[in-house]
Amino acid sequence: MSALFPSDLYALAERVIAENKAQGRMVSVAESCTGGLVCAALTEVAGSSAVLDRGFVTYSNEAKMEMLGVHADIIDSFGAVSPATAWAMAQGAITRSRADIAVAISGIAGPGGGSEMKPVGTVVFACAQRGQENVNAEQKLLDGQTRTEIRHQAAIIALELLLP
Amino acid sequence: MSALFPSDLYALAERVIAENKAQGRMVSVAESCTGGLVCAALTEVAGSSAVLDRGFVTYSNEAKMEMLGVHADIIDSFGAVSPATAWAMAQGAITRSRADIAVAISGIAGPGGGSEMKPVGTVVFACAQRGQENVNAEQKLLDGQTRTEIRHQAAIIALELLLP
Repeated sequence: MSALFPSDLYALAERVIAENKAQGRMVSVAESCTGGLVCAALTEVAGSSAVLDRGFVTYSNEAKMEMLGVHADIIDSFGAVSPATAWAMAQGAITRSRADIAVAISGIAGPGGGSEMKPVGTVVFACAQRGQENVNAEQKLLDGQTRTEIRHQAAIIALELLLP
Repeated sequence: MSALFPSDLYALAERVIAENKAQGRMVSVAESCTGGLVCAALTEVAGSSAVLDRGFVTYSNEAKMEMLGVHADIIDSFGAVSPATAWAMAQGAITRSRADIAVAISGIAGPGGGSEMKPVGTVVFACAQRGQENVNAEQKLLDGQTRTEIRHQAAIIALELLLP
């Protein structure tokens, strides 16, 4: 239990730390719409320094480009909330860290910012592993009714992607 | 109110966003022991993208060096939890962002990692402003009894430093 986070989020963060520690795997996280929530949940777990190498809170497009090396072309062509951008964020988070696995999250948490094509609740996830060219990226429409619910759900999905 | 965070933390994050937005100021945050909690609280506020440029979750020493340009000499001589390291982290967070003000946090949240000289609850804070050479750094001993309380208190102090 943690007084700072919902119990499901904290319990899953504990599992991510324990299971990656058991395998000697380090992780990194690139967060846009979750804005540090995934890292904050992971670091709530005592001993998380054995597993979390670093996190990139790339809230602005400039941050995505400068911190993670995402090309402006990708953001201009596909948007900041797109599998292509998540792919590039995850790739950057592997390249610019010492982690074995990196997860990237970008989405529209609302209440503003939605469109017909990408309504509030649209969130993209990508996962990259060191030494593997393949990056998995996926777009989801989360059913949370509020900004808090959408961010909470997005953080849960990102943590699940970090499980071995 | 937010279901994700304690009410004092969320209320203060709302003030930081509103008051900086009113002044057109962007902020960035470099977090070690809080591990993304300050950024996560700020981004819980709708419209925070007008204020938060980016965050650096520099949990490992390598992350402090590679993401923020903290010299190994500083960490070796003074330790990762020292005003000198916080100073260098804040300086790096200004130099490597587009923010007008940056706050850095490094500390011993426990339960392990404490020493006689730097017991659990020792947290250093630094604040840098663009265009000012002066960086304020300060070491505090927080009286929280748990990892959660220490991180919560540290996040509150960091947010207060971001108020105009």
